[in-house]
Amino acid sequence: MGKIAQRYLDVDPWKIIETGFHEKQAVVSESLFSLSNEYMGVRGFFDEGYPKESLIGTYFNGIYEIPKNIQRSHYKGISDKSHYMVNAANAFYTRIFVGDEMFVFNPNNISDYKRELDLKTGEQTRSYQVKDLFKITFKRILNMTTYQVSHQNIKIEPIHYQGQMSIQIGIDFRTKHWGKPGFWDVKAYGNGYALGYTTTNQSLFSRYNLDVNTSYQSQINFKGRLNIETINFNLNKPVIIQKTIVSLIDKKGEKSIDTYLEESSKLLNHASYEKTYQDNQLFYQNYFSENDILIEGDPENQQGIRYCLFQLVNTYLGVSEENNIGAKGLTGEAYSGHAFWDSETYCVPVYLFTNPKAAKNLLMFRYNTLKQAKKRAQELDCKGACYPIATLNGDEACDLWQHASLQFQPSSAVAYAIWHYVKNTKDIDFMLNYGFEMLVEIARFFSSRGQYNQDQTKFGYYGVMGPDEFQMMVNHNAYTNLLAKESMFWMIDVYETYQNQPQIQKVVQNLGLTTSEIEVMKKQCELMYIPYDEKTKIYEQHEGFHDLPHIDIHSIPVTDFPLYAHWSYDRIYRNDMIKQPDVLMFMFLFNQRFDIETKKANYDYYEPKTIHESSLSPSIHSIFASELGYKKQALEFFRFATRMDLDDYNRNTKEGLHLTSIAAAWVNIVYGFGGLRSDGNILKLAPYCPDTWKSYQFNFHYFDSNIRVYVNPKEITLTLDQDLKEPLMIYDKAYHLKKGMTTIHVGN
Amino acid sequence: MGKIAQRYLDVDPWKIIETGFHEKQAVVSESLFSLSNEYMGVRGFFDEGYPKESLIGTYFNGIYEIPKNIQRSHYKGISDKSHYMVNAANAFYTRIFVGDEMFVFNPNNISDYKRELDLKTGEQTRSYQVKDLFKITFKRILNMTTYQVSHQNIKIEPIHYQGQMSIQIGIDFRTKHWGKPGFWDVKAYGNGYALGYTTTNQSLFSRYNLDVNTSYQSQINFKGRLNIETINFNLNKPVIIQKTIVSLIDKKGEKSIDTYLEESSKLLNHASYEKTYQDNQLFYQNYFSENDILIEGDPENQQGIRYCLFQLVNTYLGVSEENNIGAKGLTGEAYSGHAFWDSETYCVPVYLFTNPKAAKNLLMFRYNTLKQAKKRAQELDCKGACYPIATLNGDEACDLWQHASLQFQPSSAVAYAIWHYVKNTKDIDFMLNYGFEMLVEIARFFSSRGQYNQDQTKFGYYGVMGPDEFQMMVNHNAYTNLLAKESMFWMIDVYETYQNQPQIQKVVQNLGLTTSEIEVMKKQCELMYIPYDEKTKIYEQHEGFHDLPHIDIHSIPVTDFPLYAHWSYDRIYRNDMIKQPDVLMFMFLFNQRFDIETKKANYDYYEPKTIHESSLSPSIHSIFASELGYKKQALEFFRFATRMDLDDYNRNTKEGLHLTSIAAAWVNIVYGFGGLRSDGNILKLAPYCPDTWKSYQFNFHYFDSNIRVYVNPKEITLTLDQDLKEPLMIYDKAYHLKKGMTTIHVGN
Repeated sequence: MGKIAQRYLDVDPWKIIETGFHEKQAVVSESLFSLSNEYMGVRGFFDEGYPKESLIGTYFNGIYEIPKNIQRSHYKGISDKSHYMVNAANAFYTRIFVGDEMFVFNPNNISDYKRELDLKTGEQTRSYQVKDLFKITFKRILNMTTYQVSHQNIKIEPIHYQGQMSIQIGIDFRTKHWGKPGFWDVKAYGNGYALGYTTTNQSLFSRYNLDVNTSYQSQINFKGRLNIETINFNLNKPVIIQKTIVSLIDKKGEKSIDTYLEESSKLLNHASYEKTYQDNQLFYQNYFSENDILIEGDPENQQGIRYCLFQLVNTYLGVSEENNIGAKGLTGEAYSGHAFWDSETYCVPVYLFTNPKAAKNLLMFRYNTLKQAKKRAQELDCKGACYPIATLNGDEACDLWQHASLQFQPSSAVAYAIWHYVKNTKDIDFMLNYGFEMLVEIARFFSSRGQYNQDQTKFGYYGVMGPDEFQMMVNHNAYTNLLAKESMFWMIDVYETYQNQPQIQKVVQNLGLTTSEIEVMKKQCELMYIPYDEKTKIYEQHEGFHDLPHIDIHSIPVTDFPLYAHWSYDRIYRNDMIKQPDVLMFMFLFNQRFDIETKKANYDYYEPKTIHESSLSPSIHSIFASELGYKKQALEFFRFATRMDLDDYNRNTKEGLHLTSIAAAWVNIVYGFGGLRSDGNILKLAPYCPDTWKSYQFNFHYFDSNIRVYVNPKEITLTLDQDLKEPLMIYDKAYHLKKGMTTIHVGN
Repeated sequence: MGKIAQRYLDVDPWKIIETGFHEKQAVVSESLFSLSNEYMGVRGFFDEGYPKESLIGTYFNGIYEIPKNIQRSHYKGISDKSHYMVNAANAFYTRIFVGDEMFVFNPNNISDYKRELDLKTGEQTRSYQVKDLFKITFKRILNMTTYQVSHQNIKIEPIHYQGQMSIQIGIDFRTKHWGKPGFWDVKAYGNGYALGYTTTNQSLFSRYNLDVNTSYQSQINFKGRLNIETINFNLNKPVIIQKTIVSLIDKKGEKSIDTYLEESSKLLNHASYEKTYQDNQLFYQNYFSENDILIEGDPENQQGIRYCLFQLVNTYLGVSEENNIGAKGLTGEAYSGHAFWDSETYCVPVYLFTNPKAAKNLLMFRYNTLKQAKKRAQELDCKGACYPIATLNGDEACDLWQHASLQFQPSSAVAYAIWHYVKNTKDIDFMLNYGFEMLVEIARFFSSRGQYNQDQTKFGYYGVMGPDEFQMMVNHNAYTNLLAKESMFWMIDVYETYQNQPQIQKVVQNLGLTTSEIEVMKKQCELMYIPYDEKTKIYEQHEGFHDLPHIDIHSIPVTDFPLYAHWSYDRIYRNDMIKQPDVLMFMFLFNQRFDIETKKANYDYYEPKTIHESSLSPSIHSIFASELGYKKQALEFFRFATRMDLDDYNRNTKEGLHLTSIAAAWVNIVYGFGGLRSDGNILKLAPYCPDTWKSYQFNFHYFDSNIRVYVNPKEITLTLDQDLKEPLMIYDKAYHLKKGMTTIHVGN
């Protein structure tokens, strides 16, 4: 893959540890030590300021700006409604003054630098000694249940310096976005609070109170968008300053300052660092008891996968239907905070088997934004609903028409996720009340966007970009055609199964769905063209792919990567090189429809052409490598997935964590080594233990049971907290598992 | 074609006449009554101001601005160096005051409105009576030989009003561009002059003097960017105000005000309206005596083709190698004044056979901008030179990557034009000194941009857009492949023929051209893939075109046109509908290589799929229709070409005249009805007389002879001013024509 680990952190099963300050990775560390709780996210920037490159990032789910000076297109259907998650106020703003002089962090003047993130509590601790003068320790924690509450704890211990010290703490609305200042309008501020507005008229209220263990004098200053409180004290014993922060947002910008003050008072009254620490202990204890993945014999992957589990639950817990999962979560500005089809394709499976309510909420996000998707379909001269390739609020936010107008993975991913969710939960209410309506609109979109070829023998999609973003404006992309067919088919299937249900009848009536419309779709499904060669068993990624100019991907110099940055734009799009799985992607989604020979033929054909420029690519390949017995390759790809950010494989972790890739790491181990298959009528497991591991364990939820799976080279043991209501296929045999342990011996 | 004539002008053989004011066509008239002289262009706006929609446009060849707030692309090779011909100072600014009240043009208060453009002098006259008060006449003329000089003549004749009158005349640098104000920086002004700078530091100096036939008082005012002189007089007899204007430009912005004042003094001293009128009379007399086209029996096409000849010589005379021919000439802001491959494809043939020096200068424009074309090739990760799809100064100015990065017609058009020019002039010096160097760099570009298919049996271009702009990112576009092959082949041919010439040896050495490089190109030429079906004799526009979804172009509602404005952008690109000739285009360029059956097969296949959304499309179709005996269709297409703007067929003449389409009208009659074929080793003519015409005549230059061709249904007569040095094939027989008349009887 040409990806190289940039390791600098200590390996530990439950902690992320930076021993000694790593200046070159300073911004990478900011990303890695990010904390979030779905509601908000704070990058691991230095409270006290850092004089070199830094991204002081604080983000709130759903608080966005609209870019200025957008170049409006003359052409219809080219989206120009871009919006982005905006960098918000820094409530951890701190400046330290020793005597009159401001302390500036300088690697040459400090020692015993250590930073730790405790995955069992979500507490970040960073400490160092300044010359022989004093020791300073910063702690930071975000409450995982009372999302509005976060804390900063600053401890200063005198060594040889004793005397006057001041700490400035504040709320800093001067934060930059992509390095550019100037959008927050601070409309109210006072003693310990400030209220700012975006240009989209959303508001953020930030308020704190202090608890200092020594006598001090305090002075408040308001400097434009910076709200500062200066605390003066005498350093003659360890001084601890605890700041409890309440952050409140209003996406509609309607809340008055009085309402904000009242709400924040209540929260502050009940909050303390100690309480949050205990809340989080309990939270993570529950979380890991139900979701932990244990790997015996591979400490690096153990740390990697735990870190993934931690960041995953930090990013999205399923609290609100209004939230989604940005490609970088709440940890950076790359991808503008946008959610992609990754949410349905990589995240829904994780939540489906760990937190089904969260999976449902992700689908509800799409239901709640169906109106925008219908508007988007209209802009594209189509019927029904076309879901955006990138969005925060439901509108298409991608300003590259070649993606926004040509990629329909988001729409089929929503249909797939509905089907996948309902199949594995039997949540028929969801299907009747929400799912079917989405399916109808998606099916309509695919029915209207598709075209027949010249002699009307093939139906499919012309001028599209499939999941592989290195092939643009192609015809009959197998993935697009297949998923469109399935999307239409599921809608028809649900309609025919439940047409007597009043909810279905209501949708049919409201949307004017007719039998003739369904007949049209049936014919389209029947003639949907999936390029396939019976002899070789290879699916052609799109019509003509097999004859594209060949490029040996190993002949590309490492310095050419990422290609988007080094190759002329058009050059990327005219080779048999692919960025990420495309044929393999639909073979993953519908794994059980394809026999092993077909999978092997396609893996062997496409894998050597794949450069994995998408962070989501290795996991899917690892899963196939497992199934095909390419065990070494499976483990190599897996390492990339679990330690993608910890080892900065893609050299862009400084921009933020690859959150959806983190979700894919879960999918990788559970579907890959665990052999989970959730696309059939019966759930299947087929675990094996990688050669270099002693054992591993993972959990999954299924029909109210929590199932712990322990795998070693000789046996697998399943431990259930209650009888499982549905059968489970393990290898080739169906089991009706009961509460307690079941052990199955594995042949060689 | 679904194009409807919007006729409102009188038909006249030598004039464009608007009788009565046509308010709905006010802005169309502004375009139609444009005057220019290659150096500058002035739209036919109202001197005295017009209170409704108006485009007050004055343009200078090569004076441009760079757009503000360009959205820079993150991607390599996506051009973001756009520039545009900027609207310049209005030196015809006039306001009329009757007593103290400003006169505002109001169709309800005027009578006897008449406007005429005299094609024999380039004088525009516009007159009307205001109530029963006075009559006013404006004349305007641009000197066709002393390009810097233009004139305004205002005559006011009292009827029932006698008394105080003032006329404000001025230089107005407040002109808007695409409706937006504000780029000219007026750095010097004084009595009768003003000097303005663009933000690209180019300058325009405008100066005038006055000649008034009555006593008057004058007052000068400077209002920011408006320089006004108010003339007060008593209207008691016909008053004539003559304004002589000198416009000087400096593309490098280095000229001092003193230099400008000195240069302009000299020009003003020798200039007068009467002198310019006489200069122009002589100029047009010479021009039409050598270039006129006479059509007997079709007054509409007679007027149309004369108007084309007039505007053609207004736009480009071949004065300067720095000038080119914008798609809208100097008559409007659409296409930003940019020159396209139209210059080489449609304009070079016209000049080649009417003004070979101008044809050479058009090629020298490309030679002088070879450096920028080489830089552009580098940006595209290619070798050699890639000529821009749109430019004023040689840089790529098209900010749509899907055109700028995928269309290589400009490069092959330059190669073709070199080949075509040298073939028909035997100007070997040009080839040795300039042409070969361009050919080498163009060949290198095509050699490096092309790719072999999977099994190395086909060479060609992947991810391109051919001449037909309705098919994007296609592979093996027949036009692109064929022209690339020819471009490489010509270079090799010239190299092998002239390799002993010192100029060639110098180029070979300077550019490091090697025999192995040539061998590579030879193999590429040999394996160049041109999709063709032996059985049907149809060339496939690109690989896969034949199986694209079919659309009956007649089923598209008229209100959907132009499609770019009414269809979702991506929808345009996925049908078997084409915008303009593509296969037919190369069959036009290499007409004699294809037999009549092949031409017929391809015309019959592609013509019904063509919507002619390019104004250049009908002429090519008319030429084929003539050759194939589709005489009625040939004449229909021809009418569209000659009267495109006069009848506003495309409903966008108000944005400016379709200058390159005007060139195509000449090509249409001479290659179509006249049957000229200039792509072989011997020039051919095969004229016929359209059924509804009594006769027609056209002229062409060929090896120092001027040849007048008279055609009626029974005979053709060729009149030469001197013996022709080269043979000429007429129908199927070679003639060695002598000075004087030769008559050939036509069968039937």
